[in-house]
Amino acid sequence: MTKERSTIGSQSPPNRNLPTSAYAVFEAGGDMGPFAIERRPTGQRDVLIDIDFCGVCHTDYHYVMNSWGNAIYPVVPGHEIVGRVRAIGAAVTDLAVGQTVGVGCLVGSCGHCGACLDGEESYCTDGLVLTYNSPTIDPGGITYGGFSRRITVDRDFVLTLPATLDMAAAAPLLCAGITTYSPLRHWNIGPGMHIGIIGLGGLGHVAVKIARALGADVTVITTTDRKRQDAERLGAKHCLVSSDQAAMSAAAASLDFLLNTVPVPHCFDPYLPLLKRDGVMCLVGAFGQTPSFDTNNINMQRRTVTGSFIGGLRETQEMLDFCGAHGIVADIELIPMQDINLAFNRLITGQVGYRLVIDMSSLAE
Amino acid sequence: MTKERSTIGSQSPPNRNLPTSAYAVFEAGGDMGPFAIERRPTGQRDVLIDIDFCGVCHTDYHYVMNSWGNAIYPVVPGHEIVGRVRAIGAAVTDLAVGQTVGVGCLVGSCGHCGACLDGEESYCTDGLVLTYNSPTIDPGGITYGGFSRRITVDRDFVLTLPATLDMAAAAPLLCAGITTYSPLRHWNIGPGMHIGIIGLGGLGHVAVKIARALGADVTVITTTDRKRQDAERLGAKHCLVSSDQAAMSAAAASLDFLLNTVPVPHCFDPYLPLLKRDGVMCLVGAFGQTPSFDTNNINMQRRTVTGSFIGGLRETQEMLDFCGAHGIVADIELIPMQDINLAFNRLITGQVGYRLVIDMSSLAE
Repeated sequence: MTKERSTIGSQSPPNRNLPTSAYAVFEAGGDMGPFAIERRPTGQRDVLIDIDFCGVCHTDYHYVMNSWGNAIYPVVPGHEIVGRVRAIGAAVTDLAVGQTVGVGCLVGSCGHCGACLDGEESYCTDGLVLTYNSPTIDPGGITYGGFSRRITVDRDFVLTLPATLDMAAAAPLLCAGITTYSPLRHWNIGPGMHIGIIGLGGLGHVAVKIARALGADVTVITTTDRKRQDAERLGAKHCLVSSDQAAMSAAAASLDFLLNTVPVPHCFDPYLPLLKRDGVMCLVGAFGQTPSFDTNNINMQRRTVTGSFIGGLRETQEMLDFCGAHGIVADIELIPMQDINLAFNRLITGQVGYRLVIDMSSLAE
Repeated sequence: MTKERSTIGSQSPPNRNLPTSAYAVFEAGGDMGPFAIERRPTGQRDVLIDIDFCGVCHTDYHYVMNSWGNAIYPVVPGHEIVGRVRAIGAAVTDLAVGQTVGVGCLVGSCGHCGACLDGEESYCTDGLVLTYNSPTIDPGGITYGGFSRRITVDRDFVLTLPATLDMAAAAPLLCAGITTYSPLRHWNIGPGMHIGIIGLGGLGHVAVKIARALGADVTVITTTDRKRQDAERLGAKHCLVSSDQAAMSAAAASLDFLLNTVPVPHCFDPYLPLLKRDGVMCLVGAFGQTPSFDTNNINMQRRTVTGSFIGGLRETQEMLDFCGAHGIVADIELIPMQDINLAFNRLITGQVGYRLVIDMSSLAE
């Protein structure tokens, strides 16, 4: 059964576009600055959202730098969006004006491929619409993300936020949260399991909290000893510094699962031996080409390297509800929109603990 | 519970060693030639086997060349052994003199690690004894393989051969058979599944027969069009030539599982896109370092790269019984022991269709 879904811009013809201020990057490697955009009118199944907060994700920086060669400038990044409903279309019956909602990495999908029918929209093969830099028939011709004051999104891609969570600190859950929650759930991580989180950054620190709440025994594997205390505070039972050969050897074959959050190309050989027989390492960092690694580290103990990409909408709502029930949010620092260029510098030099979130009220309407 | 097991040489002290003729390689890259060895006396739980046939595996050639740097010369290769029981120890109650038996890649394991307790002896972490080139307290100090007239093996590592199978053609099942059967079973390959076998050589051609018998729809992926007819004769429904970009693109996202039998380093990027979402590629070729590949080919459709190493003894017997029930043997060419150097040349230039088996009666007792 194909779900009826008003993909972006396919609702009744626009009457009036809504001008909105935003921040964009205008060329690869350039500084970000103010950019006036328009949002489409609120269609039958649309939700118009006043954006209060938007997280700063490593992916945003990839689009600033055009790391993947697919940026279409100007790019308005931002896909960890939290705000309040300002208006709803006539066909939206389950949301109310003023309600706190979130929008993550996706704002549309084909609705009819196998992935969509399974509720796994992030794996849509026939029309995935990312929250920014995806072609659209909306004003501008390309989707514009959450570094703006307002956004209009199809109801199916709007999440509701548990009232117990701090709005700003919950914003990173929309990307960092679901990107780590989805593989942890897919691989049935739970009580009695010993798992490792490689990398303690934006994704890693949320992953530790979620894995702990799922009941797993968590080891953080990091490149620097200075994160040990943080790892323990976040809920990790153990911390391994990857350059400490003796500690790494002593931990060989001790883990059932590794969530690899490293966002840059790296060799798997130091990490794979940590896994038991039939252990699984799941990649969630988007880095493209991997350096060579020794396949004996896989074959000889039937280990697995797999990956995961965000998560579906049903699972994203499940994750938010789970985080609501367990009081999980990101460790954040609030910044004004005007500090974004400085923020990216801090992000790439690892001077963030652990997620920057933009207070969107800093941007004029 | 730890199984009581007489690891090699740990039975009551030897009374008399048994001289046996064999063929060995004496230095890396050298020719093979006659070599006189001794087998230990038949212990309480031992089986003395007259070897009739021994398959020639790509691994044997790795030890001729010392590809992995761990060869201890002289090496007597051979781990696809079929023969008849000549004598049994007093504690062996379930085998009879004259019975047709097989020995594969393993002749000992610790018996107490997690893998051994699970009956997955090939993953033993505390004392795996390979059929050749493993330290032993037997005569010679190193295990000697099946390129010989006789072998003495612990009962637990002796398989029984279904009477319906041709002895010579069944020999390759002891390595090529179990190495492909084990991952096909582990990943539940069966009716309704579309799978690909990458590489149509010694392992690949047996894998096609087994996968077909398991009920899967099989596609062979090969580098050369000249194997198309063979692939179909062996039971494949489709054949893809990997250099045919159009055919490879047309087959994108069509397979649930890929068994990768390629024995040399290669990039995974041409193959991974053939897998559906959640599809699995399993490596069984032992090649060490893999070239770089694009992790987006994993992450973006939650695909998996895994590996497998031979199989346990229980599963090897299950495989032989399965092959007996389905009339599966390898396509072989029988050669005399004296032709082994020529045989390796043919092996590495791909002039074998599909497995060479040594008629051990060609070797003087």
